[in-house]
Amino acid sequence: MSVQTFTLYDMLLRNAAQFGGRPAVIHEQGEINSREFLARVDALASGLAALPIRKGERICILAQNHPGYLDLYGACAKLGILAYPINWRLTADEVLRIVARAEPSMMVVDAATQPAVADWPTSSGITHWYTFGTPSGPFAAFDTLYADTEPADASGTVMGDDPFAVISTAAVDVIPRGAVLTHNNLMAANLQTMVCMGLTESDCNLLALPLFHIAALGAAFATMHAGGANVLTARFDAAQAVQLIDAHNVTYLTSFPPVLSSVLDAAEAAGSRLPSLKHVAGLEGPEAIGRLHANTQAQFWTGYGQTETSGFITLQRAADRPGAAGRVAPLCRVRLVDEYDREVPVGTAGEILARGFVVFQGYYAQQEETEHTFRGGWHHTGDVGRFDEDGFLHYVGRKPEKELIKPGGENVYPAEVETVIMEIPGVNGVCVFGVPDAQWGEAIKAVVEYGDGGLSEEQIIDYVAGRIARYKKPKWVVITDALPRTDTHEVDREAVKSRWRQEA
Amino acid sequence: MSVQTFTLYDMLLRNAAQFGGRPAVIHEQGEINSREFLARVDALASGLAALPIRKGERICILAQNHPGYLDLYGACAKLGILAYPINWRLTADEVLRIVARAEPSMMVVDAATQPAVADWPTSSGITHWYTFGTPSGPFAAFDTLYADTEPADASGTVMGDDPFAVISTAAVDVIPRGAVLTHNNLMAANLQTMVCMGLTESDCNLLALPLFHIAALGAAFATMHAGGANVLTARFDAAQAVQLIDAHNVTYLTSFPPVLSSVLDAAEAAGSRLPSLKHVAGLEGPEAIGRLHANTQAQFWTGYGQTETSGFITLQRAADRPGAAGRVAPLCRVRLVDEYDREVPVGTAGEILARGFVVFQGYYAQQEETEHTFRGGWHHTGDVGRFDEDGFLHYVGRKPEKELIKPGGENVYPAEVETVIMEIPGVNGVCVFGVPDAQWGEAIKAVVEYGDGGLSEEQIIDYVAGRIARYKKPKWVVITDALPRTDTHEVDREAVKSRWRQEA
Repeated sequence: MSVQTFTLYDMLLRNAAQFGGRPAVIHEQGEINSREFLARVDALASGLAALPIRKGERICILAQNHPGYLDLYGACAKLGILAYPINWRLTADEVLRIVARAEPSMMVVDAATQPAVADWPTSSGITHWYTFGTPSGPFAAFDTLYADTEPADASGTVMGDDPFAVISTAAVDVIPRGAVLTHNNLMAANLQTMVCMGLTESDCNLLALPLFHIAALGAAFATMHAGGANVLTARFDAAQAVQLIDAHNVTYLTSFPPVLSSVLDAAEAAGSRLPSLKHVAGLEGPEAIGRLHANTQAQFWTGYGQTETSGFITLQRAADRPGAAGRVAPLCRVRLVDEYDREVPVGTAGEILARGFVVFQGYYAQQEETEHTFRGGWHHTGDVGRFDEDGFLHYVGRKPEKELIKPGGENVYPAEVETVIMEIPGVNGVCVFGVPDAQWGEAIKAVVEYGDGGLSEEQIIDYVAGRIARYKKPKWVVITDALPRTDTHEVDREAVKSRWRQEA
Repeated sequence: MSVQTFTLYDMLLRNAAQFGGRPAVIHEQGEINSREFLARVDALASGLAALPIRKGERICILAQNHPGYLDLYGACAKLGILAYPINWRLTADEVLRIVARAEPSMMVVDAATQPAVADWPTSSGITHWYTFGTPSGPFAAFDTLYADTEPADASGTVMGDDPFAVISTAAVDVIPRGAVLTHNNLMAANLQTMVCMGLTESDCNLLALPLFHIAALGAAFATMHAGGANVLTARFDAAQAVQLIDAHNVTYLTSFPPVLSSVLDAAEAAGSRLPSLKHVAGLEGPEAIGRLHANTQAQFWTGYGQTETSGFITLQRAADRPGAAGRVAPLCRVRLVDEYDREVPVGTAGEILARGFVVFQGYYAQQEETEHTFRGGWHHTGDVGRFDEDGFLHYVGRKPEKELIKPGGENVYPAEVETVIMEIPGVNGVCVFGVPDAQWGEAIKAVVEYGDGGLSEEQIIDYVAGRIARYKKPKWVVITDALPRTDTHEVDREAVKSRWRQEA
């Protein structure tokens, strides 16, 4: 029933009325208050509608953070267009595979990503090409999309359970899956964050992590929902982050290794104790968290979540129960089950299942995978955890078939890296896995069965770096003349890991 | 999609896992923790299912607050049965009209309400009759419903957008309309309250106002959702309230006149400054609010809302903007419109329209009225307000056709009282309206056109009190030999009010 609906665009309308004069977005060129932000979104929506781009169509964004990126999320929300952001660190081939699945009507790039897609405007069949910043060749200026007309009334055309965005998640099958998040998903995630962390209109988020990532997106919109401001930067830089935190009294920061350590280093170098900072949320090692608590007044918040769950579904102050991933957030349920989907007792590890308002609508254009993931009415995360007696979740690891490495918060599937390494002539087998890493939280290690002797570890790393996004290249390579194998001659992954995990 | 669902029963499951050992309900006979509360709900649900009472059927509850009342809400939530509570202050005739609309499969009463319905078990066609407390005649003991069996798995049978309860609201057409509230409505209202007031598991709500009222229900479930406790009493008593607040460190109180004044009087008499109290939420006059702020550490929260909006949709600390009704809550939108549904400018009064997660599903068994109320995709509240420049709502009054008097937070429609007075022989016309009242917030005044001279004001009051619930009887009656009338000979209500409003 339409009367119960509340979309992300409704949030912007509410904000303009409630927090109109307060800063909503602070960027290098100035400040945008909530009323101005709504006006920009309306103008952009009018421009998109005029092209026309219609409800249900997709717009891919391959760009670093930019005020227009946030406007575009808002305009898509108003019109029911799906925002389909893409990681700008991917290679052209990887982007192409995502775009082939997304089939967008428009693609938005920036100066940094134009080279990767330079000849696509003629070859791809995508009609509309725009770029943040200066126009160039086939890339029209994004600014020209803002139409100076009376904003169209879009009420009633977009409902809360309509899709809002497709956020790329793990590339289980080489192409990253796209998690379809609805307006309801985002609104529920916002409220959960607001409730747990106590966000108010006094909060100010540093939006330095990329807007294609659920963590950055979630923190930005939760802060906006509370009436607070977002300080937006094109990309993360530690010294700049410290300067912006102090200049704008930033209270809220999202962090994956090495963000927190580098910010604390930069703060020490700048002689700042970051007095405004209250909440840092993400995943970090105990050392960085300990430094944060020792050097500042801020609390580190950590938990468990995925793109598929619109961010954290368990959350705690890291100090509440060191090492744990927190308690279940208020709008979802979490169950742990064995391989037959039977609930396991407290203290026993099981696959983490989730259900509730924050669970995504499905994988874009992958109905079968969606149904499999949602079997039995629960989202199967592929991650394993256990509950303690007090209801805190402890993260255990990933299910073997969903093994995932997270260097610096990115998703890297071993299978993807292994596929590339197997292309190298003379390689007979490979096993890729994650190892703890002081700087990035986790690093990629590859054990390669290669009897030839003509290739160095560095050459294997360079080969991977030349084929897929650089963050997917192994930090460590070990060459062996025989990988341990099972009776069926498959690589015995557990044996590989137990032998080579420690050795760096 | 079922995987996105999160019902009130899901909340209880989450609570049992997260807050298992913490007190959930504190009552005269003891304490029930979150795990025990879930076990009671499961046992009661098994008993109801065995009768059987099925999804979509109704259970009417005509009783004062009781631990079983809360269990029943939970068991209904689990099975998808609609809880249909009824105001125990209504007369038997009024209850009968509600029951005729509700067509319940079961009715639950208590010792106080048994007399009003004594012969219904044989006459009404309702199959199942239970009573809180001691069984009596046709009224079986409610306690016997708790089944000592393995709890049935009800997952997948009830969805978040299924109805949870029907809460009676204004009797526009003599029978009180029943606002159907869904699980989603309640969950959204809970999160709004938790966000705005900052409720946590340390909070403790005094559940002394009746559980058939959205304000009491909403405060109870918001506190429960946050992991806090509810101290339940059969009905409000000021001296007992003070004693319970101090004994259980109650932090949260719901208040409509004369609750707050009487609690503050009782606290003074007991020599308590109510040190645990943090939040008092409701509607009260400036004098009582001023005393609260002067005498205690608590904040008074006030706003605008209805049963149809699952409680408050605007909310503020009374001190934020004295006299205002607050800012729009985070999961809804509020628009003010003229008689043609066109938005009015800031500063201009208009009918308050609402939309969002907290807007009810419709009036039970009144499809036409629902469609009319939801015209244009917005809920039309029938109330009038204006926004100021800062986005605060100011309550102005009720639309003439929806005029409503709220003595002590109850809903009294002038039309209902007028209908009764018109039955009196010799009465030629009547106009009933609300006047400010120091004790009850608002009182009922009737101006009666009665030329005969044989009837006193007291007799008119007594006549009304004998026909409908006593809280609907006029406090003030004025007899006149000629009411002002319009050209079409209708009573000119505005002229009546402007002439007789002040005179007490």
